[in-house]
Amino acid sequence: MTSAHEAASPSEPLTIAQIAKRAGVSIATVSKVVNGRLDVAPETRNVVEELIRRHGYRRQKRAARPAPLVEVVFHELRGLYGIEILNGVNEVAGEHHLAAVVSELGGRHTPGRGWVEDVLARRPTGVISVFSHLADDQSAQLRSRGIPLVLLDPTGEPGHDAPSVGASNWNGGLAATRHLLELGHRRIAVVTGPAHMLSSRARLDGYRAAMDMAGVPVDPALVCVGDFQIEDGRRFTRELLRLDDPPTAVFACNDGEAVGVYQAAAEAGLRIPDDLSVVGFDDLPMTEWNIPPLTSVHQPLKEMAATAAGMIVTLANGEPLHRRRVEIATELVVRESTAPPR
Amino acid sequence: MTSAHEAASPSEPLTIAQIAKRAGVSIATVSKVVNGRLDVAPETRNVVEELIRRHGYRRQKRAARPAPLVEVVFHELRGLYGIEILNGVNEVAGEHHLAAVVSELGGRHTPGRGWVEDVLARRPTGVISVFSHLADDQSAQLRSRGIPLVLLDPTGEPGHDAPSVGASNWNGGLAATRHLLELGHRRIAVVTGPAHMLSSRARLDGYRAAMDMAGVPVDPALVCVGDFQIEDGRRFTRELLRLDDPPTAVFACNDGEAVGVYQAAAEAGLRIPDDLSVVGFDDLPMTEWNIPPLTSVHQPLKEMAATAAGMIVTLANGEPLHRRRVEIATELVVRESTAPPR
Repeated sequence: MTSAHEAASPSEPLTIAQIAKRAGVSIATVSKVVNGRLDVAPETRNVVEELIRRHGYRRQKRAARPAPLVEVVFHELRGLYGIEILNGVNEVAGEHHLAAVVSELGGRHTPGRGWVEDVLARRPTGVISVFSHLADDQSAQLRSRGIPLVLLDPTGEPGHDAPSVGASNWNGGLAATRHLLELGHRRIAVVTGPAHMLSSRARLDGYRAAMDMAGVPVDPALVCVGDFQIEDGRRFTRELLRLDDPPTAVFACNDGEAVGVYQAAAEAGLRIPDDLSVVGFDDLPMTEWNIPPLTSVHQPLKEMAATAAGMIVTLANGEPLHRRRVEIATELVVRESTAPPR
Repeated sequence: MTSAHEAASPSEPLTIAQIAKRAGVSIATVSKVVNGRLDVAPETRNVVEELIRRHGYRRQKRAARPAPLVEVVFHELRGLYGIEILNGVNEVAGEHHLAAVVSELGGRHTPGRGWVEDVLARRPTGVISVFSHLADDQSAQLRSRGIPLVLLDPTGEPGHDAPSVGASNWNGGLAATRHLLELGHRRIAVVTGPAHMLSSRARLDGYRAAMDMAGVPVDPALVCVGDFQIEDGRRFTRELLRLDDPPTAVFACNDGEAVGVYQAAAEAGLRIPDDLSVVGFDDLPMTEWNIPPLTSVHQPLKEMAATAAGMIVTLANGEPLHRRRVEIATELVVRESTAPPR
């Protein structure tokens, strides 16, 4: 596993011995820091990490091989997302005798030791960060140890250093809205995710593009900024149904919000799709639980995760990636929650 | 990590050198087999494994420490079960700087190397087997390497060798049925899981006990043996609703089957709970997706998994378990899918 270009730094990277000398500590201590070991005083660790950060660290050729593990780090392990992603990772990782380790970035940690030290101690072959944003120093710590990092559907800005895999969210938003327009809907509401999430903005922009192209003006009263929670779908739909000119269809930017739309419709005695059409986004296996089954934009989470795992394998072999940013197509799956307006 | 009592075998366990001599191979080769390495001919591996199986294997005192990993092996990684269990494992494992590795017993493997060899190569601190039954030789291979094994909700016969954690399924079945009886239902159907699964049999027996204690005879026409799938709930409910004297309530032995009951009720134009009461089992987070929210027996999957992880930590420290079989209480959570019969 070589990735000298990744460890590039202004000066020549330092050897363990050089770091030890500059830090005024033993080589064994530097080695402990490099490997995320517990028994180093926090101040000492900071000095060593700072030297590695500034100058880089030249790994020894005879360094131990990484463990046959792919770290999959979630911001929060919740819902069926995680299962889809783990299955995708395992599909590719298994072929290479790698196993998936699951951790939570915000998980419980003893003081003085964070997520990244635990990862360094496990010496994984690579790290896949799922919907979560590693701090710059965490990324740098992985990079300095030559541990490849791939981001899955990053929510931050583009132009990040690490390779990444996403879904074509804009196209998905477009397809969902076009489907409703083609059924004859004009009063189409949208319940989005958080404004700071790129995936959410892209879905909303796809909605706007479809409306514009159909010559249907976007009514600001029908654009509701949510937080990808069931409760958002419920709350906003209650409000939308109280409008003088309520929507005949709702595009919920994830399946959870779509469930909230179902709940509000049931409360109001409205039938789906007769009285209100609903489109979701993600197409989690859970959509078969909905009555009627939900029309939704399929986000290929499993395929995205498998792709990320494949990128880890490539990088760990010291090979270059064909593309550092991969976007996998979304696809509208039409079920029974959409129909022409009355 | 010592567990000499676990490696007990009729004769004194052999050292690596003794195994090598008897097998007519090098010590390095035996070491490779012990550590699940790839580069050993299958016949050679079989000879060595057979010697280890027959005589046991005396680990060297200076043997490498296990990796800070807990293997969580699923029969199939599907649905929210997995997320609950991983969160429970991580809760305890994280405190001990152990991370969860996720694998599937029936997953994809290259020929000549199965799940257990991959596990041996990772040298985990312990293995938690979830709803899946390891073959005797797989268990023996873990035991001979001193890797503790804990079973989570085993579906096989009791009296198995390994420590295990389950839920009080019988009590859950009793509580679900009593709740319906107390509401005034007498025609109460049950849709079970597979007959070969102990957890399923226990839930059904709890149902029978509640009916018997209430003096309500069990009508065999109302007992439907399913397979824990949504489709079972749908299919059996369709049949039940065609009976001359249809049930007024259904106890579905998992939440998936309960969703199928909802679907069949919707098809038939029946309202839940007004026309039909439904109780599920598991109380997965998904129950909030149901309209109306599902009354269900809470199976404490997260707590069960945390308990199993705690047992792994205890065993890995060479300490005895307080109890080798732990059952955690289930609890009925009453929501809006149950009401008195019309």
